[in-house]
Amino acid sequence: MSEIVTIQQSVMAEDEKYAFRIRKRMGRTLMVNIIGSPGCGKTTLLEETASRAPFLFAVIEGDLETSRDAERLAAKNVETLQINTKGCCHLEAHVIEKALESLSLDAVDVLFVENVGNLVCPAEFDLGEDFKVAVVSTPEGADKPLKYPFLFVQSEAVLLTKVDLLPYVRFDKEMFSRDVRSLNPKSPIIELDLISGAGVDTWVSFLSRRLEEKRAHADRQST
Amino acid sequence: MSEIVTIQQSVMAEDEKYAFRIRKRMGRTLMVNIIGSPGCGKTTLLEETASRAPFLFAVIEGDLETSRDAERLAAKNVETLQINTKGCCHLEAHVIEKALESLSLDAVDVLFVENVGNLVCPAEFDLGEDFKVAVVSTPEGADKPLKYPFLFVQSEAVLLTKVDLLPYVRFDKEMFSRDVRSLNPKSPIIELDLISGAGVDTWVSFLSRRLEEKRAHADRQST
Repeated sequence: MSEIVTIQQSVMAEDEKYAFRIRKRMGRTLMVNIIGSPGCGKTTLLEETASRAPFLFAVIEGDLETSRDAERLAAKNVETLQINTKGCCHLEAHVIEKALESLSLDAVDVLFVENVGNLVCPAEFDLGEDFKVAVVSTPEGADKPLKYPFLFVQSEAVLLTKVDLLPYVRFDKEMFSRDVRSLNPKSPIIELDLISGAGVDTWVSFLSRRLEEKRAHADRQST
Repeated sequence: MSEIVTIQQSVMAEDEKYAFRIRKRMGRTLMVNIIGSPGCGKTTLLEETASRAPFLFAVIEGDLETSRDAERLAAKNVETLQINTKGCCHLEAHVIEKALESLSLDAVDVLFVENVGNLVCPAEFDLGEDFKVAVVSTPEGADKPLKYPFLFVQSEAVLLTKVDLLPYVRFDKEMFSRDVRSLNPKSPIIELDLISGAGVDTWVSFLSRRLEEKRAHADRQST
C-alpha cells in the first residue's frame, strides 16, 4: 500500500503550510479536532457541551453528505459551518482555512472541528488545531486503542462515551484503560453518559483549563 | 480535496487489474467483502457464522494493527489470514491477491474479507469480491445511510447488528429502512442480535443462496 502512503505524505506536506497559518490565525481561540467512529456520539457531545460550557464556541462539521449534524447544533444556537467532503474520508487544513472565512472567530472562545466519522484517516492530518480528542463508545468494544493506535497516541484527551450501555455490552474497561495508557500515558480518559449528562462537567472543566492555558500562553507571546 | 481523489483513482485503476485476476481465480468460491465501522460486530458475525453455516469458509482479516480478530476466528477453527495495513484505512486488491497465495481456497466454499473498520474508504475499492456487505450497529444511529451513502449504494446486503440494544439506544428503525431503501431499493436488510444469535440463520440462508447462484453460473460458463 506504499502508493497511497507516499501520496498522502506529499499532500500532507502541502497541508502543513495551511495548518501553520491556521494556528497563527487562531490567536487566543482554542481549536479542538474531535475524531471518532460514525455514531460514537460526537455531535451529541457538542450539543451537551453547548448546554453547560461557560465559554462560547463555534463548530466546523465534517461529513461526507447531509447537514444533519449542523442542523442539530444550530438548534442549540451554536454557530456551525457544515463541510460536505463528498466522499473524502477526512478533513484537510486547506478546507478548514477556507471555512474560517465564514465564521466569526472573534466572537468565540473555542472552535471545535467535528471530523468525518472515522478512526483512521483524520488522525493523520494536522488541521492547525491545538489538540486532537479521540472518542470511543462502549458498544465499539475495548479493543479499539490497540487496533487504531495512531489516533490514541496523537490525542490529548480520550473520551469514552455511552457508559450507560456498559451493563448491556461486552466492554472490558480495565483493558481499555490499560491499552490507552500503554499508547498514551498522560492524556485524561473521560467517561461520558451523554443521555444523563454524567461526565460532561469533567469534559467542560478540561476544556476550560486548556483555554486558560492557551490564553496565558498567547498573552506571554504578545508582551 | 481534489488531490486525494485524483490520486486514489489512479491507484484504483491499477488495482482493477488485480481485482479482475482475483475474480477469475475464485472460480466457484463466493467472495464477500464485509464493511462497517469499528466495533459494529464484523468479527462476531463471522464467529456466529462459523457455528451455523452449512458451508466451509476462510477469512482475510484487515486491521491497522493486532491479530486479535484472526485469533478469535482461529479459535472457531476458521482458516484466517491477518493483514496489518499499518496505517492504511482500507484493503486493496493487490494485497488480497498476495494473501490468496497463503490460503487453501480449494478447501472452502466462501471467502470472507473483513475490511478495516471504516464506513468510507473500503467502499471505494474493488477487491475482486462477488459483492460487498454493509454492517451498521444500532448504537451508531439511524442517520448513517445518508451520511455514508456510497457504501449503501454499493452493498448487496445491509446488516443491522446489536438489535438487542434497541431498548437502550436512540435508533429510528423506520427512518433507517427508508433511507437504505432510497439508496438501494433491492438489497435485503437483515437484523441481527449476535449475542442470542437471532437473525444469523437468515444471513446464512442469504449466503447459501448466493453461493448456489455463483456455482450455477460458474457451471454454465464452463460448459
